[in-house]
Amino acid sequence: MQTSGKIEILETTLRDGAQGQGISFSLQDKLSILKTLDELGVAWIEAGNPGSNPKDMEFFRLAADIKLEQSRLCAFGSTRKKNVKPEDDDQVMCLLNANTEGVAIVGKSWDLHVREVLRASPEENLAMIGETVAFFREKGRRVFFDAEHFFDGWLSDPGYALSALKAALDAGAERIILCDTNGGAFPQTIGDAVKAAAAFLSAGDPATLSTPAGRLLGIHAHNDIDLAIANTLAAINAGCLHAQGTLAGFGERCGNTCLAALIPSLELKLGYECLPPGSLEKITGLTRKVAEIANVSLDNNMPYVGSHAFTHKGGMHSDGILKTNRSFEHVDPSLVGNDRHFLVSEVGGRSAIAERAKKIEPSITKDHPLAAVLAEKLKAMEAKGWAFEGADASFELFVRRELGRSSSLFSIEAYRVVSEHPTGETIACSHAWVKVLVDDRREIAAAEGDGPVHAMDSALRRALGHFFPELGKVRLIDYKVRVIDGNAATAAKVRVLITSTDGVRTWTTAGVYGDILDASRAALTDSIEYKLIADTENPGSSG
Amino acid sequence: MQTSGKIEILETTLRDGAQGQGISFSLQDKLSILKTLDELGVAWIEAGNPGSNPKDMEFFRLAADIKLEQSRLCAFGSTRKKNVKPEDDDQVMCLLNANTEGVAIVGKSWDLHVREVLRASPEENLAMIGETVAFFREKGRRVFFDAEHFFDGWLSDPGYALSALKAALDAGAERIILCDTNGGAFPQTIGDAVKAAAAFLSAGDPATLSTPAGRLLGIHAHNDIDLAIANTLAAINAGCLHAQGTLAGFGERCGNTCLAALIPSLELKLGYECLPPGSLEKITGLTRKVAEIANVSLDNNMPYVGSHAFTHKGGMHSDGILKTNRSFEHVDPSLVGNDRHFLVSEVGGRSAIAERAKKIEPSITKDHPLAAVLAEKLKAMEAKGWAFEGADASFELFVRRELGRSSSLFSIEAYRVVSEHPTGETIACSHAWVKVLVDDRREIAAAEGDGPVHAMDSALRRALGHFFPELGKVRLIDYKVRVIDGNAATAAKVRVLITSTDGVRTWTTAGVYGDILDASRAALTDSIEYKLIADTENPGSSG
Repeated sequence: MQTSGKIEILETTLRDGAQGQGISFSLQDKLSILKTLDELGVAWIEAGNPGSNPKDMEFFRLAADIKLEQSRLCAFGSTRKKNVKPEDDDQVMCLLNANTEGVAIVGKSWDLHVREVLRASPEENLAMIGETVAFFREKGRRVFFDAEHFFDGWLSDPGYALSALKAALDAGAERIILCDTNGGAFPQTIGDAVKAAAAFLSAGDPATLSTPAGRLLGIHAHNDIDLAIANTLAAINAGCLHAQGTLAGFGERCGNTCLAALIPSLELKLGYECLPPGSLEKITGLTRKVAEIANVSLDNNMPYVGSHAFTHKGGMHSDGILKTNRSFEHVDPSLVGNDRHFLVSEVGGRSAIAERAKKIEPSITKDHPLAAVLAEKLKAMEAKGWAFEGADASFELFVRRELGRSSSLFSIEAYRVVSEHPTGETIACSHAWVKVLVDDRREIAAAEGDGPVHAMDSALRRALGHFFPELGKVRLIDYKVRVIDGNAATAAKVRVLITSTDGVRTWTTAGVYGDILDASRAALTDSIEYKLIADTENPGSSG
Repeated sequence: MQTSGKIEILETTLRDGAQGQGISFSLQDKLSILKTLDELGVAWIEAGNPGSNPKDMEFFRLAADIKLEQSRLCAFGSTRKKNVKPEDDDQVMCLLNANTEGVAIVGKSWDLHVREVLRASPEENLAMIGETVAFFREKGRRVFFDAEHFFDGWLSDPGYALSALKAALDAGAERIILCDTNGGAFPQTIGDAVKAAAAFLSAGDPATLSTPAGRLLGIHAHNDIDLAIANTLAAINAGCLHAQGTLAGFGERCGNTCLAALIPSLELKLGYECLPPGSLEKITGLTRKVAEIANVSLDNNMPYVGSHAFTHKGGMHSDGILKTNRSFEHVDPSLVGNDRHFLVSEVGGRSAIAERAKKIEPSITKDHPLAAVLAEKLKAMEAKGWAFEGADASFELFVRRELGRSSSLFSIEAYRVVSEHPTGETIACSHAWVKVLVDDRREIAAAEGDGPVHAMDSALRRALGHFFPELGKVRLIDYKVRVIDGNAATAAKVRVLITSTDGVRTWTTAGVYGDILDASRAALTDSIEYKLIADTENPGSSG
């Protein structure tokens, strides 16, 4: 594809992303994310606000010892306070002491803010911008000016908004970043304002803002009306060559521009270069890694990198994909390191079943008689309330059983679970014993728990642990219960979904019964059986 | 604000939304969502695909008895198969038998799909479209034509793509919906293609596609590159007066256009009318209700309706907000029924609380001291994992208790629940006894059940039935369990939601505990208490 040019990316998970609710990074988290972003190869990593956050100060001290392979480091702060010299402003001095190559300085460009929030004169605000930028230039820093609320300012008083940019440019800022701080602007406004800014700033010297080696206009968008990506694209289309965001879209309120959604569109569809060659296919893995470090569940529906982004459920779609990928996929998922999935469900068809069954038995195609048998059995199970959607491991076990590729490794001979209230002094509210049979050996174990399912789970693992010590590594990471037919309520069938991990693999199993304990037992049994089979077939791949 | 015109909204949570992974609606869920969408007042509700899904057929049979106050019902299907008459096509006949006012028919408009997926001649595809539309017109249906992959088709072979639209229009379709089925298009393409379609179809009669009473062009977008909202806006800007999506953005892969993000922008910022007057401020509550029924956690970062959408974490922002709201908020959250937050809190601000509390005590307004007390208590409960969204009856009981308007009518002194396997000959897998206290009288009762919750529920009702025979009329119609903190899996806190009916009223209660039995007991107790209070206050209104 022909190159449309280079877009410089600034990643701000560690600064603006940290403003998101539910995000709280430890020092170690920040260092891990720094390395992850460097591996992806974004041009700049904005990593903290040392003047407002002592933890960030400590981070920059440690970060100085880390050699980044691909990215450059930048710290964030504000213009100096009113009527104070930069060198007498603590916040400015903290930013200086962070000792980063790049320094991002946020300043006001909306007259309303200057008047009502800052409560300064328009001239004093321009002086705050100019003097702060000049101060850091003198200290040899590369200065980025973040024009806060630029688009609101441009709508309110365009002349003043542009003069704020000019104050920064004249003082030596090499990036002028136009921020939609409240996230409420439309692409049309963004495009018009960017063009106006480019025309105003480059007057007399059209090259000023256009060469990558020189000074650039940038865009910083928020997603409050779900237009962060559209606005960023509109800004790039209008002349911005620098774009900011967070890889997973973390950020205050509705988040920042999601770079994992932006960069693939720019590179794959619009012909821009954002990352070093070969990096794009790491974006799914690295975005998930950042989310994992942040301890945030990534939205499955995320464009490009979500686990459902290329998942097909409708039978018609699944069938179409198998005929020609392009027919139901806007890009090849492997280009961003993601995978195609087919869901087995009541709206799916034989093609989806065959696609998954052939991972176990490669000879099964859509027209293979076994695919029809499996589809028939599946339909009968679904009529009873089963659904393998989201329960890949149970589906695999179902196929193995149908193909005669599975021998049961253990069985539960008996169990008893008791829950009572009020509790005695010596036993928890729920307690259980479970007796298992493995080959011809039996083992019985007891456990207490928070509720009957937890008690049974604990007792079962304890009993099986005698035979299969590798189960010690397995942890349940999610447990969901759903009533299938609401009409029968507490007597209705329930579907339990359990997600387990051994630290390497993650798998999900399902159980459907009238009794929540039976359904949980079925899902737990499948989870354990899946682990034991997987270990046997791929002995090296776990832990 | 000056009106820019009316946009007709079609909501498809029950059809395209049901294609989303993790979404699985029971019949009861579908009926509840239908009523919720009618309350919001979208013009059309596309509620299922009767030809591909027997459950949807049953739904339409039941839906026929529900009188919708504001919305109209529509069912979805495909054009007839190749070389078959519409009346000989089972899928077409299922769609007809759904007996809805509106019928949406999807057909191919991308030459690639006609050739490689459908494997039909270009002429046969046009005949499939025209004959199917004509068939439904003859039967008196209002026909919507969904031009699948229209934008890909327009880029590939614009003449053929447009001829597919024309085949539907000429056969009598009154809505021509342009679909970005793969979700990979950009706003520029969308705008250009919509303009081309409008020009082509209205040639010779510019009024054909422009009057709301007549035929309209519509847009159906997907979010695969995070541009569903931008694309929908671009289509509206280019002439579409009908827009489709799902309230919470549910849908296959990355989801459909999120109407909870689209409608507020259209109404508040662009001056369009989409919903009946007064509905917009219900959109946050009703979107959350749909998610609750679907048993899906709504993304906190959702534009407009997410619980963090107006949450300010940065000190600078919070301070700015207190000086002037406009300074850090793109719209007033109360316009969409959402709330501003400064502190870390999961849900619900004072206005929302007051809004709901005043149903019990009309004097409570947002500024009433009791609203602050309730908000404070609620925050403490939320920190423990409680959430009253979707559990109106439990919320009402909570407010009554706080206002001293409730005296406990009964209590559970003790219970014991036992589940065992294998079962003996004389007792079911789960059995329970419960001892209740009413005034100073005690009653003990035992019951068996399908699972521990059912056994406890049955025993509790039997014991209380001695005192309150009216409980005989109460039936549980839904029971949902969600784990609150997935990381602790079976040991995590669970939230149980129970929906009950006495044949006249329907109400939902919640319970949150580490133990699923305790959580169920709390929700059951609330359910019974709510019924007893409601009967006392409105003696004539039940059964």
